Amino acid sequence: MVWTLDEIAVQVEGKVHGDGSHQVEKVATLEKAEKSDISFLANSKYKKFLDNSRAGAVLVDHNSASSVATNAIVVKDPYVAYAKVASLLCPSDTAIAGIHPTAWISPDSHCHKSACIGAHVFIDADVEIAENVEIGPGCVIQQGVKIESGTRLTANITICTQVSIGKNVLIHPGVVIGADGFGIANDNGKWIKVPQLGSVEIGDDVEIGANTTIDRGALDDTIIATGVKLDNQIQIAHNVTIGEHTVIAGCVGIAGSTHIGKHCAIGGAACISGHLTIADGVQITGMTMVTKSIREPGSYSSGIPAESTQQWHKNVVRYRTMKKLEDRVKQLEVLTKQ
Amino acid sequence: MVWTLDEIAVQVEGKVHGDGSHQVEKVATLEKAEKSDISFLANSKYKKFLDNSRAGAVLVDHNSASSVATNAIVVKDPYVAYAKVASLLCPSDTAIAGIHPTAWISPDSHCHKSACIGAHVFIDADVEIAENVEIGPGCVIQQGVKIESGTRLTANITICTQVSIGKNVLIHPGVVIGADGFGIANDNGKWIKVPQLGSVEIGDDVEIGANTTIDRGALDDTIIATGVKLDNQIQIAHNVTIGEHTVIAGCVGIAGSTHIGKHCAIGGAACISGHLTIADGVQITGMTMVTKSIREPGSYSSGIPAESTQQWHKNVVRYRTMKKLEDRVKQLEVLTKQ
Amino acid sequence: MVWTLDEIAVQVEGKVHGDGSHQVEKVATLEKAEKSDISFLANSKYKKFLDNSRAGAVLVDHNSASSVATNAIVVKDPYVAYAKVASLLCPSDTAIAGIHPTAWISPDSHCHKSACIGAHVFIDADVEIAENVEIGPGCVIQQGVKIESGTRLTANITICTQVSIGKNVLIHPGVVIGADGFGIANDNGKWIKVPQLGSVEIGDDVEIGANTTIDRGALDDTIIATGVKLDNQIQIAHNVTIGEHTVIAGCVGIAGSTHIGKHCAIGGAACISGHLTIADGVQITGMTMVTKSIREPGSYSSGIPAESTQQWHKNVVRYRTMKKLEDRVKQLEVLTKQ
Repeated sequence: MVWTLDEIAVQVEGKVHGDGSHQVEKVATLEKAEKSDISFLANSKYKKFLDNSRAGAVLVDHNSASSVATNAIVVKDPYVAYAKVASLLCPSDTAIAGIHPTAWISPDSHCHKSACIGAHVFIDADVEIAENVEIGPGCVIQQGVKIESGTRLTANITICTQVSIGKNVLIHPGVVIGADGFGIANDNGKWIKVPQLGSVEIGDDVEIGANTTIDRGALDDTIIATGVKLDNQIQIAHNVTIGEHTVIAGCVGIAGSTHIGKHCAIGGAACISGHLTIADGVQITGMTMVTKSIREPGSYSSGIPAESTQQWHKNVVRYRTMKKLEDRVKQLEVLTKQ
Repeated sequence: MVWTLDEIAVQVEGKVHGDGSHQVEKVATLEKAEKSDISFLANSKYKKFLDNSRAGAVLVDHNSASSVATNAIVVKDPYVAYAKVASLLCPSDTAIAGIHPTAWISPDSHCHKSACIGAHVFIDADVEIAENVEIGPGCVIQQGVKIESGTRLTANITICTQVSIGKNVLIHPGVVIGADGFGIANDNGKWIKVPQLGSVEIGDDVEIGANTTIDRGALDDTIIATGVKLDNQIQIAHNVTIGEHTVIAGCVGIAGSTHIGKHCAIGGAACISGHLTIADGVQITGMTMVTKSIREPGSYSSGIPAESTQQWHKNVVRYRTMKKLEDRVKQLEVLTKQ
Repeated sequence: MVWTLDEIAVQVEGKVHGDGSHQVEKVATLEKAEKSDISFLANSKYKKFLDNSRAGAVLVDHNSASSVATNAIVVKDPYVAYAKVASLLCPSDTAIAGIHPTAWISPDSHCHKSACIGAHVFIDADVEIAENVEIGPGCVIQQGVKIESGTRLTANITICTQVSIGKNVLIHPGVVIGADGFGIANDNGKWIKVPQLGSVEIGDDVEIGANTTIDRGALDDTIIATGVKLDNQIQIAHNVTIGEHTVIAGCVGIAGSTHIGKHCAIGGAACISGHLTIADGVQITGMTMVTKSIREPGSYSSGIPAESTQQWHKNVVRYRTMKKLEDRVKQLEVLTKQ
């Protein structure tokens, strides 16, 4: 698929500097791009590669336009423009409708004829699969699940009973949605199971990364709202709710019944305790430990970054003996007042 | 299934306040319960919902009994009572005995006729599956595995060679039990594999959350004792032993050869180094870093909770320069003594 | 399989003390070994078990040779020697060539006749499987994947489109290689997908632990070099590169476009931010938070280990109020100067 820069500029609301009739076929990094490629500059760290780039064109913002030796398309946000151009030039394959001969579908379920059901898939009773849904190889869809149109489950995914998934959702391999939440009660020293009777609702346009787990609710449902993007290996406990267009990086853990607002951004490996409320528009940096509700938008952090192991040992000792330092200061205050 | 409050009270050793003949059909939260539902108050945080609840009855403890406007069943521990009532009113489906036509079972293995073997299951040689076991769709059971009666593997689970699993164990999707431990030895700069020759023993009444991994031992076995409850995405390394009735929340990592006692409770995302001993009755709060053995029961913690990113930057600098503050105090002490 | 100590000594470049004709059949710990077993002492912590061991022989280093009551094989590195002896005495089963009747392989793919393709495997088009490769039950191999000779995928693994895997790689259950990286761009409050057009290259002799995930690159490839050893539940984001013979323990997260050098060792649950460079020969201890590049070899750490919860509360307060302590010291300095 070949596009001229003029055609691309229309798609990204940009302005061509240079030869608008130049044709490009694919996207590439500034370092690797050739004449038939279009590249982008979204992070000033990579500006050093601009001079020697052989790209046929570069997507840049207004500030960097003058630094481009080759053709440029000047746009408001080069990364957004790049995302759109990459989707234009490299559209993802559309699955072919049909049911693989090794798939097994309960006669009490309904798959739209446009759906693609892969090898070794198992679909239990009372499931509804809408148009243009793709269920990749090895997926297990338990009883009563509903999956709306255009959603794609790649491979080896488990969707447990009664879970509902919206439109145009993309779920990566190894994801488990709707397993029991961790509900236990201590009955004289032994832990007994609290039945997990809620389910999980996933909105539209959600993406869920590989091996992420989202537990079903204890009574009410766990809810992932429209537009939420989840990276890999995230753990979302029972009855968590996540507001629209919130993004969460890999390895984050969110404990039970916590409510995360809309348009939040949670950094990798952050952990959030249970029964909290996180306001809309909160950013949490990587590895942060959140133990209290956050009521105001803004950026929040914790954790002490790495230093040499030798220095770390000394600082940990100082941390643990701050009381002594306080006592010494107090003693000085007494002496000084005399 | 309909129960009167009098009938329920017998099951939970409680006392009815109000109409013991009132009938309930299911459980619900205080906020959502209707006349035919029974609810519970286990966390004082939710007491505010008691007044306006339309529940047909509420499970409460002695202290809250007088606050209930509707019928109450007064019990010692409302959460335990709720767990029991929920199990009564909403029993989990029992699997139907039989082997799915797409399952493949080695002729050298034995599945009890009451077992339920799901779609696309693979069972290798020398496996023993006892009565009333359920092996859900997509599970892989390698050679020599033994699974005792009443145990349920939900879906897409891998049980590696020689692992033994006790009675009434519940294992959620994506779990891997008995993969090789991380045994490597440095042979002149290259890492060579140390064969992992032990296995894993899982006791009775254990629950294992989605995508949790439990490695096989290097020589002796990794052991998860009876009554242990594990949440999702936990990593348990080779030769770890976990004592009876210990509970572990999501995302915890336990390094090799560490021994965890009985009746411990380990909070989410805590990490425990290798070759340690954790006593019986230890509680560890979420995100704690455990690098030394803990010999006494009690509660242990580490980690600094979130603050605004601006404040965090300042505090990290102060942490890193504590030495200077100490030096200033020392200098003052010298001056003051003169 | 029976070996004499003389024969073993040749294999491990060691020297027999005692009866070189003594025969051993398997390996065992010092505590459990019998006369027909060979054991080892690699960690001085276990020296106490040497006296009472009934092992037929013990692999030890020069310093401990005199403490062995039974036969000894004295070697430079007892753990390396043990790894070799364990591999000799307990070789892993070799898979039987052939395609399981329940596997489904695209006619446009090619599997070498010596390969072993397990039950319920799905292999899509344009895949190349070399000699002596084992693809275990439940694995999904997407379009265009190449797997070189001697590599073993145990079970329930997903390899996404175009990924290439080298020789003699061992991949444990639940691993996902080549799922989309977490590429999103914010288009007026909504997140749009940035297509992930790169792939993943895995070198030779790599081991990848259960439920680990390695994302495909955004444009260029994610690269895991030869000899890298990865434990369980590690998350490796798009465009990360990991140098030869680096080892990474469980639960580590590495964010996008970070480059890790050769011969590094990264402890469990450490997290490394994106776009960083970690030099060759760096060690990072468990749970460390790495937010800046590390340019020099050496050992790096962060995190404050556990203390009693009561003490923790006090120390966190002191940490948060260090500013006040500084102010008090400043005030004292003013007073003292007067």
